Amino acid sequence: MKNICLLGATGSIGEQTLDVLRMHEDQFRLVSMTFGKNAEKAIPLIRTFQPKYVAVGDMDTYRKVKEASFSHECQIGIGEEGLIEAAVMDEVDIVVNALLGSVGLIPTLKAIEQKKTIALANKETLVTAGHIVKGHAKQYGVPLLPVDSEHSAIFQALQGEQSKNIERLIITASGGSFRDKTRQELQSVTIADALNHPNWSMGAKITIDSATMMNKGLEVIEAHWLFDIPYEQIDVVLHKESIIHSMVEFHDRSVIAQLGNPDMRVPIQYALTYPDRLPLPETKRLELWEIGSLHFAKADFERFRCLQFAFESGKIGGTMPTVLNAANEEAVAAFLAGRISFLSIEDLIEKALNRHSVIQDPSLADIQEVDKDTRGYVNSILT
Amino acid sequence: MKNICLLGATGSIGEQTLDVLRMHEDQFRLVSMTFGKNAEKAIPLIRTFQPKYVAVGDMDTYRKVKEASFSHECQIGIGEEGLIEAAVMDEVDIVVNALLGSVGLIPTLKAIEQKKTIALANKETLVTAGHIVKGHAKQYGVPLLPVDSEHSAIFQALQGEQSKNIERLIITASGGSFRDKTRQELQSVTIADALNHPNWSMGAKITIDSATMMNKGLEVIEAHWLFDIPYEQIDVVLHKESIIHSMVEFHDRSVIAQLGNPDMRVPIQYALTYPDRLPLPETKRLELWEIGSLHFAKADFERFRCLQFAFESGKIGGTMPTVLNAANEEAVAAFLAGRISFLSIEDLIEKALNRHSVIQDPSLADIQEVDKDTRGYVNSILT
Repeated sequence: MKNICLLGATGSIGEQTLDVLRMHEDQFRLVSMTFGKNAEKAIPLIRTFQPKYVAVGDMDTYRKVKEASFSHECQIGIGEEGLIEAAVMDEVDIVVNALLGSVGLIPTLKAIEQKKTIALANKETLVTAGHIVKGHAKQYGVPLLPVDSEHSAIFQALQGEQSKNIERLIITASGGSFRDKTRQELQSVTIADALNHPNWSMGAKITIDSATMMNKGLEVIEAHWLFDIPYEQIDVVLHKESIIHSMVEFHDRSVIAQLGNPDMRVPIQYALTYPDRLPLPETKRLELWEIGSLHFAKADFERFRCLQFAFESGKIGGTMPTVLNAANEEAVAAFLAGRISFLSIEDLIEKALNRHSVIQDPSLADIQEVDKDTRGYVNSILT
Repeated sequence: MKNICLLGATGSIGEQTLDVLRMHEDQFRLVSMTFGKNAEKAIPLIRTFQPKYVAVGDMDTYRKVKEASFSHECQIGIGEEGLIEAAVMDEVDIVVNALLGSVGLIPTLKAIEQKKTIALANKETLVTAGHIVKGHAKQYGVPLLPVDSEHSAIFQALQGEQSKNIERLIITASGGSFRDKTRQELQSVTIADALNHPNWSMGAKITIDSATMMNKGLEVIEAHWLFDIPYEQIDVVLHKESIIHSMVEFHDRSVIAQLGNPDMRVPIQYALTYPDRLPLPETKRLELWEIGSLHFAKADFERFRCLQFAFESGKIGGTMPTVLNAANEEAVAAFLAGRISFLSIEDLIEKALNRHSVIQDPSLADIQEVDKDTRGYVNSILT
């Protein structure tokens, strides 16, 4: 029996994590969970999974949960302190970090200090402070297990292999909602267009990141940190069916790939069962002859500028990826609020990157300062 | 430094094995080699690789090698005794069995008894006597490493995995020279048509086996023995580009595949370096965006009758796969000699299978008797 802390229980990854726990009640117990504001969704989950501790995002939500009646003992916390409390509880074996944005950083560091295994779906944690998180994980001997389908694919491909033999990581990209549009056509796309992802349904922020390919850019940086591979040895290839979830090429030119029908429960469960596997009977078996053909295309940096920004920021390192991530979060929020056009997302990120004087080997305080400063700057130049 | 014995040095796999040894002179030394009749090709190889022992197929070839002058000490043997002698030499670490047909069986068993690691490219060894070879390998604690690209792919996909979690093996098939032809069209194909494989150049026998899909059928039986997986958990899928070399589906629906441009040196080298990998710089790197698309189709048992014969023979077990293999070898030889039509290959195999009364758990003597009897029968009904 493994005891689980789930940070971000009402989001897309959180829901699917709970679905995995539901299928394997004899293997996993939810000890603590957190969510932001969606009490209506969370309260039935608390009743079903009966976690001992629940943390929420704000006072209003706190009151709603306090007023609900539960048949089990349940402590309730709030804010970042609540996130940390949920993650460091004695009984917790694995912390699933399914938070959105850079809010996931501190709870992850605290959980690492308590030697919790980290299942990481929150890519901003590694993007914004990869050297700190990775250094921490090494220091405390804690495994960082990927939950993202791409990183899980790479992680699975690396089982039984030696990292000295890696030639490159090949991350596949669906191309998002606008993969078949030219830059000309991108000028007039709407929020609704951008939110209509061809392959799956996810939260709004990540769907926009998928349309700009910033999502893939963040994954490149995440892969760099997770697998300790230089950016020169990471490639992205467009693969619109999202059946091959990513690959590793070894120096004998052998390529190992992980495939499957798109279903996040597979990588989520793998992180929870690693190094073992459990059945996942509800998911659809992959029959390649039913699919017929898989397509691949070059990921063009001129077409997908965010991908280029990510590689450049990653190579520069230091606080540059923090700026990339913070500027992206603010620009996407502004787009979703109807304040800027789709292509302005890229322009805002570029301006923030160009303006920044990089700090190498930054402290956590440096990162937080740069994060805040970048967000302020981006919001100040919104027109 | 690993010391290698190469059985079948002048065939396609033999040549490519020598190519791998040539690229890694500091890692591998050829201690012994064998070949059948092609002294013209073999003598320069003996001069280059300087094996201590060479075995040849017949007296005429023996004389030719004896007459050649070598700058190093080189003993020369002949026939099955020579094959065994080459395989069991004290210094040998790995025996690469790249022989054609069931002649590879006895030397393999003898090498196992001497605790040599076996790199197996000779599928007839496992098809005809899988339970004996596998039982022998278990008894002597000797690894059987696959050299066939499909089995190497499965073997690579299984690294770091537990066999209890395997859902099925998915073997890919190019479909051979006639993959786009109907059964109607197969009635009039010629030897030259059959020998024109779309994806690579191999020996005549295996190219015909590829056209009938018997090659894939033999691989299914080989996979059953190598990986100890029931036939019900082995599937074949047509994949004309031969880029995905085979796959393993686990019970969480995750599929691990091994990919690469078709190049036998990759699986050959992997068997020699396992569990490590070495660079193989001469081979072409796989760029999926250059290839553009990969295609898959159902392997139809009515279209490819040999595939069905192989699954059926495998499931029946005992001496049935021996009959399958012996009948196929004789029928293919008759086709290559211009004595029968392409579709008669299947008919002859079917007749031999229908006629046979299976012996379960056969001894080596039973197998040899059935092998001989089947060959005699097939030749007796050639018209």
